[in-house]
Amino acid sequence: MAGSLKGNMLIAQSGGPSMVINESLVGAVMEAKKHREIKNIYGSLHGIKGVLEENLIDLRKENKATLDAVAKTPSSALGSVRKKPTEEECGKIFAIMQKYDIRYFFYIGGNDSAETVHIVHEEAKKVNYDLHCFHIPKTIDNDLLENDHTPGFGSAAKFVACALMGDNLDNRALKGVKIDVIMGRHAGFLAASSALARIYPDDGPHLIYCPEHVFSMKQFLDDVKQVYDRLGRCVVVASEGISDEYGIAIATKFNKETDSHGNVQLSGTGALGDLLSHEIKTKLEISRVRADTFGYLQRSFPGVISAVDAAEARAVGIEAVKEATAGHPEGSIVIRRRPSKKYGVFYERVPLQNVAKNTRHMPEDYISAAGNDVTEEFIEYARPLVGALPKIGRFKAVAVKKI
Amino acid sequence: MAGSLKGNMLIAQSGGPSMVINESLVGAVMEAKKHREIKNIYGSLHGIKGVLEENLIDLRKENKATLDAVAKTPSSALGSVRKKPTEEECGKIFAIMQKYDIRYFFYIGGNDSAETVHIVHEEAKKVNYDLHCFHIPKTIDNDLLENDHTPGFGSAAKFVACALMGDNLDNRALKGVKIDVIMGRHAGFLAASSALARIYPDDGPHLIYCPEHVFSMKQFLDDVKQVYDRLGRCVVVASEGISDEYGIAIATKFNKETDSHGNVQLSGTGALGDLLSHEIKTKLEISRVRADTFGYLQRSFPGVISAVDAAEARAVGIEAVKEATAGHPEGSIVIRRRPSKKYGVFYERVPLQNVAKNTRHMPEDYISAAGNDVTEEFIEYARPLVGALPKIGRFKAVAVKKI
Repeated sequence: MAGSLKGNMLIAQSGGPSMVINESLVGAVMEAKKHREIKNIYGSLHGIKGVLEENLIDLRKENKATLDAVAKTPSSALGSVRKKPTEEECGKIFAIMQKYDIRYFFYIGGNDSAETVHIVHEEAKKVNYDLHCFHIPKTIDNDLLENDHTPGFGSAAKFVACALMGDNLDNRALKGVKIDVIMGRHAGFLAASSALARIYPDDGPHLIYCPEHVFSMKQFLDDVKQVYDRLGRCVVVASEGISDEYGIAIATKFNKETDSHGNVQLSGTGALGDLLSHEIKTKLEISRVRADTFGYLQRSFPGVISAVDAAEARAVGIEAVKEATAGHPEGSIVIRRRPSKKYGVFYERVPLQNVAKNTRHMPEDYISAAGNDVTEEFIEYARPLVGALPKIGRFKAVAVKKI
Repeated sequence: MAGSLKGNMLIAQSGGPSMVINESLVGAVMEAKKHREIKNIYGSLHGIKGVLEENLIDLRKENKATLDAVAKTPSSALGSVRKKPTEEECGKIFAIMQKYDIRYFFYIGGNDSAETVHIVHEEAKKVNYDLHCFHIPKTIDNDLLENDHTPGFGSAAKFVACALMGDNLDNRALKGVKIDVIMGRHAGFLAASSALARIYPDDGPHLIYCPEHVFSMKQFLDDVKQVYDRLGRCVVVASEGISDEYGIAIATKFNKETDSHGNVQLSGTGALGDLLSHEIKTKLEISRVRADTFGYLQRSFPGVISAVDAAEARAVGIEAVKEATAGHPEGSIVIRRRPSKKYGVFYERVPLQNVAKNTRHMPEDYISAAGNDVTEEFIEYARPLVGALPKIGRFKAVAVKKI
């Protein structure tokens, strides 16, 4: 297609929610209102499922106050879905899009969602249906290819860092071993972010395990013992995706449920934390061992939002509409970091296939040689994305001379 | 003893941390500085354990900025302990207190901590050691006798309400059954507070189970099915302490670890959530069922603090020092609510034994007749303690006419 088409716009959200996914949605809607090419602005409920069922809402009917409030509200306001359309369903999708004269399709989500947009676009090309197809990035896992980082990650990382600040203090007050299981299917960025919680040299997390490094139960027990012997306590962060030498996630040994993208359920169960806890209790004979699995709080807790993350999430929504109305047929908006000392980013459009399906892992130099911590490089990378953290007070604690 | 003694003061923290326990500590220290009867101000590290080991710190050496920062920091800044002193240890405690000329003893904690103060005071009386013994209330469980509510509860309840606001939105976006396991050994106040998350009629939590009502697995499954059939989703809140008809906590069937007060471990494991989740998956054949156990985040997450709770936590610390220096030998400070329409409280001193050991349960009229929800009476009770919650935006969602 050449130039930009006149027609209606359809926007939807897919995959796991985030704390700022509605910033992208509202950014796109606000920007769309500025472009005369775009007539009606439809929101599909529960992603591609809403298209198939023709469950659309009219986003031009939402006033400014509602849009502003929704932007600041966590979780996907249009509803979400985990669904990869079949070829037959794609055919049906175009038929519906044609019927509603939709020429602009925006899909907010992660790599699976980018894959969906890519499939829709490929199918549209096959039948010569002109459709601007754009993926707007979102994932708390921070595992999209091409991106320096992804919208949703900074706020989830802020939640994790805050949680570990509190949990470290809790463990300092009532000593023992504490294990926190953090989201992250294939990428350890979120687990790694727990390192931002540290202020004092003895602060936890004392050990951090990411899926990028082979998890050995023996090394884990040795590590915990060493920290516990030194400090009388130990705070451990483990990514839900930690895997053995065969690449098999430790958590999957307990749960085989999968979605239509073939992903096994790792979240929404305390099994991994309880397994690690059990190993420490029995093998190291430490009695006070606790495990918490942060679960969905990491992606939907209201009020704990990184300002940088919210602003960037808004920006990628705006950029996608700008690129589409400028006449580009397809793409995904990616975030690049400026190579300057002061933090800054710029946005680019890349082909959908560059972002679809595959995931990014943490660079090797973000993980310590022993595989049980992160490096200073990671801290420098992550700190500006998370922004300011709560102030933590601590006593000088001048000892009273024993009599 | 008559009138107030001159001597040193010792303050310590005990039991589970809270988000505002340091407000009470700093309140007591700041107030103590105003009273000439009190010479040195010692903090004992890890409660009564620090006394036995003579691990004391000099709290007069902490400057105003540190005290202010510590007050706003969650978790027990002096460290905590779960320990009931034996009679022999009590003897040792007085010997140490005498050696350090301690005449004012303040212990911040829950019912177990009040019991400890009571034991210490009784033992002190036996050996004619004059010691002002005061308990300063703290418990996120809100289960202290005599109190309208306890410091720490409001902030933990705010965390729970915020978490459920987010989790309800998450469940609305990606439908299924979600179970959230909330702290509360014997009292369901914290689980009940999740009801404050509701704004719209279809908002979760849709079902709330407290330990005060016998938990029946059959009724639970019937309840979940009914909500799920109506809304296509269901958010369940279960207190960790829910018990069967024999008074046996469902969670204890998996874990037998106890502390020296005889309490079984209920927190720090995902077992209860996973059990309930398993029942729903297998008996109701609902595939997407997730369980999160909020764990220690509820008592130590920084930044999510109820302003009313923080102010009252500060006040009970101040009151305890005022009562002790006014010459009263022992007591616990309790919070009473004014019988006025506008929320307000006053503080009273009651004998230690009124608060020690036993716990308070939720009044019957706070739980719905079916035992799966709370009543409007509870909402009215809890709302002022929690204060303002995040604003949640929602689309009007005007449906597009199907073509």
